[in-house]
Amino acid sequence: SGSVLASAPGVAAASRAPEPELAHREMARELAYHAEARLGARLLPSAVPAEVAEFRNGAGNAVGSLDVRRGSPGSTIDFMLQSSLHCKVPNGAIDITSLLIFLNASTDAPHFLMELIQGNPTSIVVILDLLPRKDLALHPEYIEKYYENTQLDRQREKIEELPQARPYRSQSLFVRSACSPTAILVSIDCGQGGGSIMDEVLRGQLATAAKELLQIWLDTCADHTSKMEEGEREYMIKRDQMVRSKSIEVDLTSNLPRMFDPDVSSRVIAEIRKAFGVQEA
Amino acid sequence: SGSVLASAPGVAAASRAPEPELAHREMARELAYHAEARLGARLLPSAVPAEVAEFRNGAGNAVGSLDVRRGSPGSTIDFMLQSSLHCKVPNGAIDITSLLIFLNASTDAPHFLMELIQGNPTSIVVILDLLPRKDLALHPEYIEKYYENTQLDRQREKIEELPQARPYRSQSLFVRSACSPTAILVSIDCGQGGGSIMDEVLRGQLATAAKELLQIWLDTCADHTSKMEEGEREYMIKRDQMVRSKSIEVDLTSNLPRMFDPDVSSRVIAEIRKAFGVQEA
Repeated sequence: SGSVLASAPGVAAASRAPEPELAHREMARELAYHAEARLGARLLPSAVPAEVAEFRNGAGNAVGSLDVRRGSPGSTIDFMLQSSLHCKVPNGAIDITSLLIFLNASTDAPHFLMELIQGNPTSIVVILDLLPRKDLALHPEYIEKYYENTQLDRQREKIEELPQARPYRSQSLFVRSACSPTAILVSIDCGQGGGSIMDEVLRGQLATAAKELLQIWLDTCADHTSKMEEGEREYMIKRDQMVRSKSIEVDLTSNLPRMFDPDVSSRVIAEIRKAFGVQEA
Repeated sequence: SGSVLASAPGVAAASRAPEPELAHREMARELAYHAEARLGARLLPSAVPAEVAEFRNGAGNAVGSLDVRRGSPGSTIDFMLQSSLHCKVPNGAIDITSLLIFLNASTDAPHFLMELIQGNPTSIVVILDLLPRKDLALHPEYIEKYYENTQLDRQREKIEELPQARPYRSQSLFVRSACSPTAILVSIDCGQGGGSIMDEVLRGQLATAAKELLQIWLDTCADHTSKMEEGEREYMIKRDQMVRSKSIEVDLTSNLPRMFDPDVSSRVIAEIRKAFGVQEA
């Protein structure tokens, strides 16, 4: 095992325990399988060192995993990133699962992004979006192509109509600005004792919406190269870079150090930065 | 009177009846007074022809008003537009009130926008925003300056916490994309017999939020000229132009022809296009 604790025999057994099974983690894994099957050779083999592929903290209460597969040369794929964090806290556990498939500058098609943040067995925050790569207020044709013609808003509506769903607003105004107008940004709260309802919602409506979004992304974005003028492409690259560095800053790099020892979290963050192609701020 | 029906004696008396008093219209007028007092000589006198300043339809069931004041030369103000539409429908009336203060290209500061759409005495849609003029995903410093430092999100929160408020989503993905991440976009529904609650909310929390937004706008945006590189300014002008033409298309030019006779609505629309500086599509 590449676990950073493999050499500490006393806690090794406990700390080697895999992350617990969770409906939401299972859902993310199924989505990732589906994406991998469809993208095939356009994804290179996994490229993260073992100590980052799976990691733990010294106290034994947190475990995480990270997988990054770069796109093959000539493909539109920049990288596919899966990550999963599990951290026991006094009243339960926090579980964060991410699946990101980002495209490179050969296309202006949106990235795929899913993030699930479960603070307890009966509530979860869901962020599910095709992340736009253009300034939508200047490009109505982009909205039409990727968001209207694909009827993405229907998926959002279905989830928001769930009686357990409330709109979720990121604290970060930047994150809100980076999302599309059809982004699924909800907090699903099933109330005390609602664990089985939560499971149903996750395996039912939420899994369905996530699959449909991924399918739409695979069909309309993943293969799509775009003709762009040079200035347009430069603008997109600058914008992409900003979105990447800000989302790393807001998201993983703020969560990881709170859950893991500094050496572990900085190794993981370095690997994520490498995937995102952004330098430390 | 400049009413288009002034020469039709039969219906003249009825059709000359002013728009009914409404809490929301009163609120918009107070805001406009406040803005005018503060902007003073930076606003030129009203410049709309009498037949557009106030207009009616032939059937006598709809009445509207439009006022446009251009900014004076050398000021940052492009125009201030107030409009009000009242249309009787079988089950009541629709009232739409708008207050827009748009800036010119000497600054990249946000525009002020308020729109109130009341379909019956107990429910209203509120759109209240400082409309960004930059691609926020590329300009976190713009978010910080105009939206974070001004704590605009607090205003949104206060309104969304009202028990009568639900998030409102424009059907138009473009409109959603053009708004800021702190935009107040709510539907306030007070239920059957809730007319007095509605009045309280309008004159209370909503009027307060609208005043605070206007005050923030007057303090941080209205006087603000911006140093920009030429390419930046060109980009902003293109973006502004797109936002202006799309919002006219989505909004007034789709409502007016349904309420007013073609000659009336096209005169009014022509005047709005002139203010916005956009040509017919």
